Amino acid sequence: MPVNLTAPNPQDLHPVAGVQLGTTMAGVRKANRRDLTVVLLEPGSSVAGVFTKNRFCAAPVQICRDHLAAGPAKRAIVINTGNANAGTGDDGLVRARTVCVALAQMLDIAPEEVLPFSTGVIMETLPSERILAGLPAALADARPDHWAEAAAGIMTTDTLPKAASRQVVIGGKTVTVTGISKGAGMIRPNMATMLGFVATDAAIDPALLQPLVTEAANRSFNRITIDGDTSTNDSFLLIATHQAGNPAITALDSVDGQALRAAVVAVSQQLAQAIVRDGEGATKFITVCIEGGRTEDECLQAAYAIAHSPLVKTAFFASDPNLGRILAAVGYAGIADLDQTRIDLYLDEVHVVHQGGRRAAYREEDGQRVMQQAEITVRVGLNRGDAAATVWTCDFSHEYVTINADYRS
Amino acid sequence: MPVNLTAPNPQDLHPVAGVQLGTTMAGVRKANRRDLTVVLLEPGSSVAGVFTKNRFCAAPVQICRDHLAAGPAKRAIVINTGNANAGTGDDGLVRARTVCVALAQMLDIAPEEVLPFSTGVIMETLPSERILAGLPAALADARPDHWAEAAAGIMTTDTLPKAASRQVVIGGKTVTVTGISKGAGMIRPNMATMLGFVATDAAIDPALLQPLVTEAANRSFNRITIDGDTSTNDSFLLIATHQAGNPAITALDSVDGQALRAAVVAVSQQLAQAIVRDGEGATKFITVCIEGGRTEDECLQAAYAIAHSPLVKTAFFASDPNLGRILAAVGYAGIADLDQTRIDLYLDEVHVVHQGGRRAAYREEDGQRVMQQAEITVRVGLNRGDAAATVWTCDFSHEYVTINADYRS
Repeated sequence: MPVNLTAPNPQDLHPVAGVQLGTTMAGVRKANRRDLTVVLLEPGSSVAGVFTKNRFCAAPVQICRDHLAAGPAKRAIVINTGNANAGTGDDGLVRARTVCVALAQMLDIAPEEVLPFSTGVIMETLPSERILAGLPAALADARPDHWAEAAAGIMTTDTLPKAASRQVVIGGKTVTVTGISKGAGMIRPNMATMLGFVATDAAIDPALLQPLVTEAANRSFNRITIDGDTSTNDSFLLIATHQAGNPAITALDSVDGQALRAAVVAVSQQLAQAIVRDGEGATKFITVCIEGGRTEDECLQAAYAIAHSPLVKTAFFASDPNLGRILAAVGYAGIADLDQTRIDLYLDEVHVVHQGGRRAAYREEDGQRVMQQAEITVRVGLNRGDAAATVWTCDFSHEYVTINADYRS
Repeated sequence: MPVNLTAPNPQDLHPVAGVQLGTTMAGVRKANRRDLTVVLLEPGSSVAGVFTKNRFCAAPVQICRDHLAAGPAKRAIVINTGNANAGTGDDGLVRARTVCVALAQMLDIAPEEVLPFSTGVIMETLPSERILAGLPAALADARPDHWAEAAAGIMTTDTLPKAASRQVVIGGKTVTVTGISKGAGMIRPNMATMLGFVATDAAIDPALLQPLVTEAANRSFNRITIDGDTSTNDSFLLIATHQAGNPAITALDSVDGQALRAAVVAVSQQLAQAIVRDGEGATKFITVCIEGGRTEDECLQAAYAIAHSPLVKTAFFASDPNLGRILAAVGYAGIADLDQTRIDLYLDEVHVVHQGGRRAAYREEDGQRVMQQAEITVRVGLNRGDAAATVWTCDFSHEYVTINADYRS
């Protein structure tokens, strides 16, 4: 039961000049399911990405890193669900490379111009032969207006496809930014991984894509958490086809650069928040803002301590304004010299704690009222500096346990 | 439903010469409940302790630290349940001091010789007047053989009292080590806190108590986790009355010192493990051993990543050998240069993963068999050094969510 999330309307997803998407049923794990997606990029396109920091990263993540190290010029992306190809050793690398080579041959490009992605069960052999057999059908399906189909094609345990799109005028030309994402828990019994793909037709110096994708990730996908488990396969790509006809952006802090950044960040945030809204068992969407820190890092420490606390998350599930749990989480966040007597806590606009203690004017019914909402903002003031950070998360329900305790069959 | 835990038999709890314990019903939060406990120590006793690192520590913790800074000679401990006196600001400090002063007056000792402890709901005013009114009855109840009553008196949401006792011969004299503990979640809607109290009549240089309590904590209470939430009130005290008649221990690495250390650590581990066995909603007791690390710290990072992962814990609840989740947790534990191709994973004696990949000889039914047990050891070999660490935890069940999502009424 996603929180304020609906399936994207295909008409709202603007095609990106130079990008085509196709899907098919390859039977990777289950029959009658669109589980193989290809994204084709016209010559001259550039790609940058950020990947899981998990040291146990999956084979396709290792290959993406290798292929991107060869340069940003890419022509194709291939994504399978049903199998994460993680914890699979050398055999997993061989199978992921086999998929790249096969797709490259079909497209008459180099294998290094292909980026592979996998999501699904961990520690099982990738059935690469089924993927190879499915590639021709996926290619035949490729069209510029298949963004919604691709969003559905990369779903695993997601209950809804996730996509977002914006247009912005840059240098007199309409520039499009469209993206898709997937993920419901950071890892699931069967299904692993957060994936995000955002494409733009903006003309931009390819060297700017890596800082832009890093910034966008740090303001979106790197600021969400459902259960604190970092997947072996998490990946986020930014694609630029350079076809919009705008004067090429040569600096991210120029007027045109800032316009594109704003659009890319907005699309990325909408895609990332959609993952939280569709979080396993989620019934509430929680925004955690930490203000007045000395550094962004310490604000993030406090925000994640709150967002990861099972006690805080079960209290949100119960609509219980048990706000001492939030104070306790701030206290154990690891901010070495934190002075508890300076802390403020707000629940939406309700001022609960001042100078580290419960305000005399705070009435539990006010906290209770906010806790019953589907969307809640927790705001903590550390009152020791000017830094701030925001993280998005969801609550922790019976349904989460049910989903994750299900046997994999 | 605790995991392999039963109530202590009072006959098994050896009195500690110089220690008397008394309880009463003070009505701190609820009527007809033994919620106030005093521990009286004969003159000459010494105390050392370790306390929560939560920066939002409770008022009684702050006062314990202050009083211990004045020296180890202590005469009384007072513990209330029903209210944690945390997040209560200056008023909380005043009320905790009031309790110390009142008890000191009744015993004709200095307030600094009293150590106060509170456990229960956070962010509510401590009803210190009820505690003051209850102190005479608690004192009147004090007897050397009331360890079991005290273990019951400090319970909050614990389903069983927790106590342990051993005797060891040191220098030809029988030395006793007896302790009690409480805690079921690190924090609960109503009830907060892990508390541990271990007393010995061993004669020992008081200066050795602090390193001994630190060592014991680091091998017991600091190695357990239920939900990763560090309470505002966690406390662990080691008391020595020095009355056993053994030649005073002057070094922890002497023969006598090692004998006492072994007994104190064993009692502390039993008390700490009892908290996990009685963990909120626990159905399994899990031992996580990390071996072959470069440092103990990195072994602990990996052990806690496993022990805190909601996905690992729900898999244990489901008896699902979904072991990729364990690998993923090791991968995101933050060990910077971990080489995934060196990892081994065992479930009890079943060798699941070698060189980072699933062993060809591993059969899922073997993993399944171990997962169905009530006690399971997860062993991970990092194969990069000689350090090791062990952490104890429990699984994560529907009952945990039920307990923690209950409204506080």
